[in-house]
Parts: sequence; C-alpha cells; structure tokens
Amino acid sequence: MAATNKKIVLRNHVTGFPKESDMELVAATGAAPSRVPEGTDGAVLVKNLYLSCDPYMRGRMSSHDGSYVDAFVVGEAITGYGVGKVVDSSHPGFKAGDLVWGMTGWEEYSLIKDPSRALFAIRHPDLPLSYYTGLLGMAGFTAYVGFHEICAPREGERVYVSAASGAVGQLVGQFAKLMGCYVVGSAGSDDKVRLLREKFGFDDAFNYKKESDLSAALKRCFPEGIDIYFENVGGAMLDAVLLNMRVRGRVAACGMISQYNLEHPDPVHNLTAIVTKRLRIEGFIVSDHYARYREYEEKAARYVKEGKIAYVEDVAEGLENAPAALIGLFSGRNVGKQVVVVAREQISK
Amino acid sequence: MAATNKKIVLRNHVTGFPKESDMELVAATGAAPSRVPEGTDGAVLVKNLYLSCDPYMRGRMSSHDGSYVDAFVVGEAITGYGVGKVVDSSHPGFKAGDLVWGMTGWEEYSLIKDPSRALFAIRHPDLPLSYYTGLLGMAGFTAYVGFHEICAPREGERVYVSAASGAVGQLVGQFAKLMGCYVVGSAGSDDKVRLLREKFGFDDAFNYKKESDLSAALKRCFPEGIDIYFENVGGAMLDAVLLNMRVRGRVAACGMISQYNLEHPDPVHNLTAIVTKRLRIEGFIVSDHYARYREYEEKAARYVKEGKIAYVEDVAEGLENAPAALIGLFSGRNVGKQVVVVAREQISK
Repeated sequence: MAATNKKIVLRNHVTGFPKESDMELVAATGAAPSRVPEGTDGAVLVKNLYLSCDPYMRGRMSSHDGSYVDAFVVGEAITGYGVGKVVDSSHPGFKAGDLVWGMTGWEEYSLIKDPSRALFAIRHPDLPLSYYTGLLGMAGFTAYVGFHEICAPREGERVYVSAASGAVGQLVGQFAKLMGCYVVGSAGSDDKVRLLREKFGFDDAFNYKKESDLSAALKRCFPEGIDIYFENVGGAMLDAVLLNMRVRGRVAACGMISQYNLEHPDPVHNLTAIVTKRLRIEGFIVSDHYARYREYEEKAARYVKEGKIAYVEDVAEGLENAPAALIGLFSGRNVGKQVVVVAREQISK
Repeated sequence: MAATNKKIVLRNHVTGFPKESDMELVAATGAAPSRVPEGTDGAVLVKNLYLSCDPYMRGRMSSHDGSYVDAFVVGEAITGYGVGKVVDSSHPGFKAGDLVWGMTGWEEYSLIKDPSRALFAIRHPDLPLSYYTGLLGMAGFTAYVGFHEICAPREGERVYVSAASGAVGQLVGQFAKLMGCYVVGSAGSDDKVRLLREKFGFDDAFNYKKESDLSAALKRCFPEGIDIYFENVGGAMLDAVLLNMRVRGRVAACGMISQYNLEHPDPVHNLTAIVTKRLRIEGFIVSDHYARYREYEEKAARYVKEGKIAYVEDVAEGLENAPAALIGLFSGRNVGKQVVVVAREQISK
C-alpha cells in the first residue's frame, strides 16, 4: 500500500471562496519513484516532508491573469513552498540525502527540473526542518525584507501589523520589537490576541472582529498615529489605517487576504491621505530579494538559537489534510504558520 | 481712491464645493502701507504683483485638520504663493526693489515676518515674472521633484499624467518627453487635449469626460501598461490606472483634485494591484525638497530660454477676480496655470 505517489491536484479554477472540493487527492498507480528518469539532466527527485500553506496561493487557484504568479494547472499537482529530502539527483549541485526547501509539488515525491532556481540547500538542519516552510524560509524572509527594506524603520517608531499572528505577521512584530519599535498587532480571535501579547511580545493587540470601529481601535492603540503599517489584510482595515497614519508614514503591502476571495473588491475611501500625509505604500514580492536570503537565514537561525524569536506553527498531519489546511487560512482557522506534514524524516547528523 | 490695501478674505470655512461668496474683497481704510512698522525686525513689506491659484488651497479652506497645511483664518486674507516686489525691509537679506516669490497674502501689500523662510529671491527677472507663480516656482518644482525623484523614471518608460494641461501636469509631460519617455495625458476638454498634443508634445492624449470606460481608454493608449502615473486626480481615475499599471510601476501622488470637494470621498477598489504588481504609490510635498530649488530654477530658466519647454498660463486680471479664478480650478475652467494679476510692474534691468 505504501509507496505510490499520492498528490493533491486542482480540480477546477476557483472563483470566490475556495472549497476542499476544488482539490482532490489522487494516488498514482505503481511504485513510488526512486530515480530521476533516464535522460533528464540537471534535475532532482525530492521526497517532500513539509508543505507550506500561504495566502498568495489563492491567486494561483484563479484562472485569470494576476501578473503575479502563474495559475495552477487543472488536473496537476498544486505547487508551493516545501521542505524535502533529495532522493536522487542528476544535477551537480545536489546529491541524495540533501535537505532542501523551495518550490515543490503537493505530492509525496516531486521531480524538480530546475533545482538551482527552485531550491535552497538547508544550512541549519539542527533546527526543526518545518521552520524552513516559514520562519527560516519564504515567510520569514518576507517579513524581514518587508519590514527592514520596504518599511525603512527607525528605532522608536510606531508599527502596526494586521494578521499579526500569521506566519509573516508574528515575525514582523518581533523584528520590529528587536529594533526598539512600539508594536501593535491585530488578529481575529482572543486566543490569537493573547499570543501576540504573551508569546510574541507585542506592546498591544486587539481582536478586530470585536471592534465596531476599526479607526477608533487604531486611535486607541496609536493616539499619536502610525509610522509603519505592515499590510496583510486590505479593504476596510487599510481604509482605517489611512486615517491613522502619521506624516511620512510607510505601508509595506505584503498581502490583502481579506480581498482574495471577493469577486468585487471592497472599496477604500481614504486615499487622499497619501497626498496630505506624504505616505508611501509599496508592494513587494520576496522572490525579488532572494539574493540576500543567506544573510537572513544566518541571522534568523541565530535568533532562534538565542531564544530571541518565538515562533508558532499550526501543523496539519498528512497530505490528505492539505486542502483543508490551505482553505483554513482564508477563514483565519490557523493559529500561526500553517504547515502540512507529508512525512517525518529522521535526521541523522 | 488708489492706494489703500485691498484684500481677499475668507468669510467662512467651506464644506463641499467652494463658492465665490466664501470669500470677499475688503478694502482697508487709510493709505497703502509703505514701510515695515517701526519695531518689526527681520520683516519685509511686499507689493504683490501676481498670485497663484493652486488646488492644494482647497484643503486650507476647510476647518478640519488635514495635517498638510494649516487652515485659512476666517476674516483674514487668504495666503498663497505669489510674486512681489519688496517695498521696504528690516531684514538684512532683502532690500527695497528686490523681486521675490513665495508665500504671501491675497492683498495688494503683505507684511512678511519670516521672509528668509517664506520667500525666494528671483534670479531670472528677464523671464516673465508671472512664471514664478508656476513654471519657475512651486508648481514647476513640484513637477520636477515629483517626476524625477518620486517616479524614478528611466528612458523609454511609459508615463501617464492626469490633469495634464494644468500647471504641474503640462510640465511633468514635458520633463518626461525630455527624458525620452512615452507620454500620454488626459484633460477635461478637447481644447486642452489639443494643447497636450500640439503645444506640449505629448505622444497621445484623451478627453476623460468623453470616455465611458477609463480603463479601456488607458488600455487603448497603453496596450502594454503604464510604468509611471503622475497622479493629480484620484478617485475613479486612480482606480482605472491601477488596473493598467505594469509590474514595478510607480505612482507619484501629487494631488487628488477630484476628491477635494467631496464630503465622502469616492471609493477605489483595485488596490490589490499594489501587491500583485509590486507598485509603489508615494505622496510628496514640494516644500520638503526646497533645498534643491536653486538647481531647478537654473535648469528650468535654461529650458525656457532655449525653447525646450512650452508653458501656458490662464491669466485673471485684478485681485477682485481672484476668488472666481481659484474656484475655476475645481471645475477645470482654467486652461494652463491659473494666475491672478494684482499689479503689473515695469521691470528696469
């Protein structure tokens, strides 16, 4: 029974809120792959261990051109970030046994044809490998680049993070605290708010679902206004933030998860604040910055080892639970970084 | 009858669309001032020659805190940019006869108490003095800083300018052409569109009032999308632009004149484009950049003398016509830079 190659495929492109039934588990027949096919040069066969559920994946489930990343192909395995172990390699830069993270498939085994572009070698296998789906991988580096590069923070500035207990938000808040900023986060449950305050060291936090007036909540937390907003949410939250920004404030637009499942995006009214307060709002994508990833990996690994960074994962067991885990992001069901375990690997080091 | 000190005062703070009756002409009794009052050190008395009507002044007519510039004081003369001649000075940096531009009052004579902050000496009095209300002054420098600094343009990029025949827009378009960009502008009448094409050398132009679908109009003019948007308008225009921006596009948010008279600003829906296309939208204010004004003045004066820049002014004669001229900005009545002549001065040089 064991080793075929199970995969999660997209059944159809999605409009509106995605459902589990938009994806399905498919078990390929025959034995599990164990070699890179004959004649396929420069490829690696990876056994997937952990998969990452990320909000940007919603865009790939749509058929339309989002000019961001390509749409998933109906009938093929969903692709995303993950952690794996090289089983076989015809690429000189990789060998069997290597631990890697990067773009892989939602399946037990993936053949990666351009591994030097798609994969990074894991340099800290002594840390939990799943961290490379988040803290030590794409989400962590997103938080780092977004905060330090796009927000251009200064010590003592007032920082607001939405979706603050998520994979990126929890790290942005902690990077901002490490820089000596005043940090407030919002999340969608009292438990998450408690995490922000007690685990991640935010100065203040609120449950946005319990606030009838988001602008008033922000005014309460930031009586003198917000210097930096790390935007994960969009829509009404962005509108409220614009009213509360300080002159020369900066907004790093990392994501707008509240908008991804809407056919008609929510209106935002307060954009004249961009002019009157000389705001800068800047979108970014982490892959534009990967040249500096190794610098981040070392810094983040050191932070973890020194106990300077706390990190919370929400772990779903088994590939078959990946669709539900992904969809849970959009209702905020996950607490912390959403990971899917495909296989646990004994690391001998 | 001649020389009292007529002035335009604000009668009341304004909500919604401003009217001429929100301002009134007041003639002070007694002789015109001719000296800085005894005991007022470091001040100059200026005879105002030309006044500038600028969209940002709408914000100052409201009572609320716009955190941009202070509100006008009811019952006092409106203040704004203008060109004048020093009549008397108790400031060591200015002497009678000096020509200056900067912040002055809407009146025949203004006592300027902080002239080294409020005023610039005019270094090219051989050019039309009124140009220092626009091309050679605040509007021109706004266009220059906004385009070259905020937009970070590269040769060959595709540039869109709204309100393109206005004081700032006409210059942005020409600066962009001088850099080798492809430039399209929009304006609110066929005559203005003709000006853009025939006088200012835009590659293409359209009358936004005749377009039922702004996004389609932009797609027609920019089949491959917009690299740079110089934003003077806001609202529905910004929404359409967001759909047509290219990846890594930049928006310099100079103004949003379509929104200034609305009690409830128009909705904008397409902000997820900031994330998906990694856009940068940045507001700015020219006064943050005045340290570099002299560099601009020399460059712009040279452009004018060499015939490299065309410039169109809409000139209202007489202080009494200033309120109508200002209000005309918001219905697009002006063609080119709106100037008010208070007094014409013979320049002997």
